[in-house]
Amino acid sequence: MSPQVIPHALERLIQDLTRLPGIGKKTASRLALNILRRPPAEARELATALMELHRSIQLCSCCFTFSESDPCALCADPKRDASLVCVVEQPGDLLAIEKTGTFQGHYHILHGVLSPIDGIGPGEIKVTELEARAGNGTIKEILIATSSTVPGEATANYLIDRLQNKPVLVTRLACGIPMGMDIKYADKHTLARAIESRSKTT
Amino acid sequence: MSPQVIPHALERLIQDLTRLPGIGKKTASRLALNILRRPPAEARELATALMELHRSIQLCSCCFTFSESDPCALCADPKRDASLVCVVEQPGDLLAIEKTGTFQGHYHILHGVLSPIDGIGPGEIKVTELEARAGNGTIKEILIATSSTVPGEATANYLIDRLQNKPVLVTRLACGIPMGMDIKYADKHTLARAIESRSKTT
Repeated sequence: MSPQVIPHALERLIQDLTRLPGIGKKTASRLALNILRRPPAEARELATALMELHRSIQLCSCCFTFSESDPCALCADPKRDASLVCVVEQPGDLLAIEKTGTFQGHYHILHGVLSPIDGIGPGEIKVTELEARAGNGTIKEILIATSSTVPGEATANYLIDRLQNKPVLVTRLACGIPMGMDIKYADKHTLARAIESRSKTT
Repeated sequence: MSPQVIPHALERLIQDLTRLPGIGKKTASRLALNILRRPPAEARELATALMELHRSIQLCSCCFTFSESDPCALCADPKRDASLVCVVEQPGDLLAIEKTGTFQGHYHILHGVLSPIDGIGPGEIKVTELEARAGNGTIKEILIATSSTVPGEATANYLIDRLQNKPVLVTRLACGIPMGMDIKYADKHTLARAIESRSKTT
């Protein structure tokens, strides 16, 4: 194909879109052509939203979530329980937990998990900051809610270790059979975990 | 979830992203959070590419493809055969055909297919423009390359009708078994078409 067949501006947008996670060359072309077919105002709106993004959002200096204010709305909310802190890997995990509507405490975003193979040690994620918060006297319980993946578990174990001398109760999310799942389809590790952590009926 | 949990600027980007085809609320959140985690320069680059898109690209007045120049690079290329015109639904189809490297003629982009249910009649796509081109004396063959879907076929049949009094040969893409496909997995319509259109061995 002669190089000039795709207009430069289109090619450039396709290139930029392929940087996003899960967007390959084909999806990027489809998205870019779709944007081109729609009114220019929509492309401008999207561009403005992108420009605004980093300009108006920073990290909350307390829990390190993305926020337009510092401290963030959650940390500043007097109705939330400041003695309970949930530790998650990423801001997206915070949103998932907020959606459940069952957690009324504060958060602490690690911004990653320990992954020596990718050069991510405790210094690259917000561990020291968590340790400092754990010693501030307000926090009574730290609920570690990292993913139940290998790096997530490793990070959880590391945090438990780092927090053992702090005057806080360290807890973990329960592990077991997902709601609505047929037992015979559960993988053996999940099933083993569910058996180990079995609970008393009342 | 309290509404202020998601910063407004993030919420707005998520909203704008969900307008794109195949991007739901979850994917949009994932993309937006990913953009937020990356350097601000990348978001700015993407925004600039979006701003530039409609500013620098228009429709070629001859073949109606998206182009930075008018006529487009393909229509202006003296090495291409102006007597053969391939009719496609969208600019993306042009790119797909160009990738094969086997077509050296010009194009005509319809910008849609006939779809009465969506209110798309001949006036909404570039049919009159094709008719005008067919009578200009340069074009000897018009290859109709609409999709082999119901609306694509209907559009092709309509075009064949409209072009029958023009001094041009009207051809269609061959229909048959895709390359590398096992006969037993071909659907019966494709197989029937392949039998009807069987070709002589040399």
